[in-house]
Amino acid sequence: MTNKTFTVVGGGPVGTLLAILLARHGYKLGLYEGRSDSRKTSIYEGKSINIALSDRGWTALDKIGISEEARNKAIPMYHRAIHSVDGELSLLPYGKEGDAIWSVSRGGINEQLLDIADDEANITTHFEHRLVDVDFESATTTFKVENEDDLVVESDFVFGADGAHSKLRRLAHRFPRFSYSQTYMPQCYIELNIAASPDGTHQLEKNALHIWPRRDFMLIALPNPDGTFTCTLFLNYSGDPSFESLRERPKVEAFFKSNFADAMEYLEDPVDVFMAKTAAPLFLVHVFPWSFNKKIGLIGDAAHAIVPFYGQGMNCGFEDCAELDALITRFDHDWDQIFPAYERARKPNGDAIAELSKRNFVEMSDLSGDQSFQLRKKIEAKFSSRFPALWTPLYSMVTFSPDVPYAEALRIGDEQNTIMEKIMGLPNIESDWDEQHVMNQLFDLAAETFGDER
Amino acid sequence: MTNKTFTVVGGGPVGTLLAILLARHGYKLGLYEGRSDSRKTSIYEGKSINIALSDRGWTALDKIGISEEARNKAIPMYHRAIHSVDGELSLLPYGKEGDAIWSVSRGGINEQLLDIADDEANITTHFEHRLVDVDFESATTTFKVENEDDLVVESDFVFGADGAHSKLRRLAHRFPRFSYSQTYMPQCYIELNIAASPDGTHQLEKNALHIWPRRDFMLIALPNPDGTFTCTLFLNYSGDPSFESLRERPKVEAFFKSNFADAMEYLEDPVDVFMAKTAAPLFLVHVFPWSFNKKIGLIGDAAHAIVPFYGQGMNCGFEDCAELDALITRFDHDWDQIFPAYERARKPNGDAIAELSKRNFVEMSDLSGDQSFQLRKKIEAKFSSRFPALWTPLYSMVTFSPDVPYAEALRIGDEQNTIMEKIMGLPNIESDWDEQHVMNQLFDLAAETFGDER
Repeated sequence: MTNKTFTVVGGGPVGTLLAILLARHGYKLGLYEGRSDSRKTSIYEGKSINIALSDRGWTALDKIGISEEARNKAIPMYHRAIHSVDGELSLLPYGKEGDAIWSVSRGGINEQLLDIADDEANITTHFEHRLVDVDFESATTTFKVENEDDLVVESDFVFGADGAHSKLRRLAHRFPRFSYSQTYMPQCYIELNIAASPDGTHQLEKNALHIWPRRDFMLIALPNPDGTFTCTLFLNYSGDPSFESLRERPKVEAFFKSNFADAMEYLEDPVDVFMAKTAAPLFLVHVFPWSFNKKIGLIGDAAHAIVPFYGQGMNCGFEDCAELDALITRFDHDWDQIFPAYERARKPNGDAIAELSKRNFVEMSDLSGDQSFQLRKKIEAKFSSRFPALWTPLYSMVTFSPDVPYAEALRIGDEQNTIMEKIMGLPNIESDWDEQHVMNQLFDLAAETFGDER
Repeated sequence: MTNKTFTVVGGGPVGTLLAILLARHGYKLGLYEGRSDSRKTSIYEGKSINIALSDRGWTALDKIGISEEARNKAIPMYHRAIHSVDGELSLLPYGKEGDAIWSVSRGGINEQLLDIADDEANITTHFEHRLVDVDFESATTTFKVENEDDLVVESDFVFGADGAHSKLRRLAHRFPRFSYSQTYMPQCYIELNIAASPDGTHQLEKNALHIWPRRDFMLIALPNPDGTFTCTLFLNYSGDPSFESLRERPKVEAFFKSNFADAMEYLEDPVDVFMAKTAAPLFLVHVFPWSFNKKIGLIGDAAHAIVPFYGQGMNCGFEDCAELDALITRFDHDWDQIFPAYERARKPNGDAIAELSKRNFVEMSDLSGDQSFQLRKKIEAKFSSRFPALWTPLYSMVTFSPDVPYAEALRIGDEQNTIMEKIMGLPNIESDWDEQHVMNQLFDLAAETFGDER
């Protein structure tokens, strides 16, 4: 047990999960969130932000025993539903039979976690407390509270779980030799909506993540329990077409009609929304170190803001929490060991999922509409089902194999890629892919590369 | 001609050269430097900071016709002088007969450039003016002046040449979608000194850059015209040995004695200096864009702070200036075209020299003391002298071939590396390297890879 105290900055899903785990290890802690309590005020303004949860996320939620309750409110997506320009639909499974990624409401899962935090005697939660300063020597934090004096909080340790725009991380620029990068993607995004049918059911296949891949841009849609879909349009910031080039209504209308004809039947006023909204940027943040003076740490998006194309942002943050939880036990509350071990374990994985998330834009927007890519996935799936010890497809390692660290998945995936390029280069692969000699060749290459590892 | 005006922030070598080039194109401009005028006050406090100038730098200086005067004050270094742990010395030439990199005083070249700027009617130079703000829409800059009101300067265009810690670049974080990275190296450094002989001559070989390569750390020495050498010790920040682990005097003494026995004869109080000085960090900065609203640009270290291991920092900054100079002529003062073209031309080269500068630490500190590396250099030099159209060694492309852009040098160097790994893997290469069959094999590989390009 312990008599040490924590300050957790940020009451989003990652901060709240971290707080619960720390509290259950016996730490008394304050959980500070800049915004108001969404359970009391409707800060989401009707916006339903949903995200994909997969096995890494569920594994972490299992630690506090809420995965079942959360799963009841989530929608499993078993396949990508790919919409071609001429309206044809093809389903591409995400993994083996039964494997799914889950569409969950970010607000919903956050509120579930906050409810549990409220039940923990060790946690005091404070909303509308905005971090303004931190002393990296003493771990003293200062929060701005409207119409009140600044609140100064002393504690033994601090974690910044304050998201992609983390204030704690910005303050860490003062720390000597702080390596930092922010990288903007060429794409920005806006959210659009598909209404439910009059009878409350989904107008498109419910158990799928819908993609309209158009190479340089794409539209995606994730199902909500109320029959709606939340859609996101990813499009370049400049160039043609882009948010910059599409300023006039007739051009926007033509853009939607020629690229998303089938979706136009369902989308709610896409042209109006497009004209009215400001496109949001997409960026990645890399930093090092993730901990300062063995007193202050970064976690979740604050440590590794990534882009949403692998659906792993929250999963990775939850996995950070699970790793810390395990290290507290392993090092018996010795934070002089826990902080360095946490950083050593998670930094390479944060870097790997950042790289994977960036690469996956191409896979989603370009390759997923590509015949050869779909064939490759089919070959890999067949081979993997016959030789599961030799081959788990990259997507499955990242999404359905929480025992394989992201960095490991990235490395193995690159080796698989080299092998599959050879296979896809075989003569007549389009017609012969199902024949024994292709499987044999793939087996030889895979056994040579991975035989010793397994 | 033009009636447009410029503000140049930073009166270091790059800012001053840029100002002179702009002035000669007819732009009226203010050159603003935060520090005082080194020609009037001794801001260097006896410190002689020297840097390596090579062909890219000279080419740019040729544009304003001062390269001859500058060369008279510089010392050519024709080879690396490599000091082994047991005091043996070997000379490894930098390039062909007569090729040299030049040790110049940073302060000296800066003052020469400032003298020329003073003679330009279009330039008004202001010292002790520290940039505090810039309006990215209007190109209005604000400077802090001691005991005076802030000075607000209006001009059509602004260039930030304010160095590795650029304030203009820091202000650019406000600019939407500004990608930024700062990366710290594991090494830090301190400067040491070797005095002149009583008769004013150099105690070590004058026309060489001296290196004591010790794998994880190294000492280097560059000659000054007054018979002294300015030395730099590069050593890890943490670990063992490191600036952190070497805190006690006996350990520091033992460190110097066991690693730099021969240099200890010449170094001035290295242990005292080591104990007294704070190690300075080494970092790289990458940003994009390099220009904002076609009104404001970054140049030199402000755009691409790199590490000193290739001796290219100032050369790259001067090359930026030369490129801009050429683009002003090419686009006839149309800055709507010049800014994007400048950024497009220079950004890949800035990235390439950053990568090369990072890699060269290993080459200097580890490989240069390595027999196999020295042999490889000998084979490359021989092959290059026989087939100069097929092969210019990477170091020579970067240092002595201003017509080859850095990005091109990096790409070709990587291909050369693949080839040389094959050659160095030949059986008995140590004894056979001078034989015809090795040259033949190298010729075949080089012709296959580069035959079409040349």
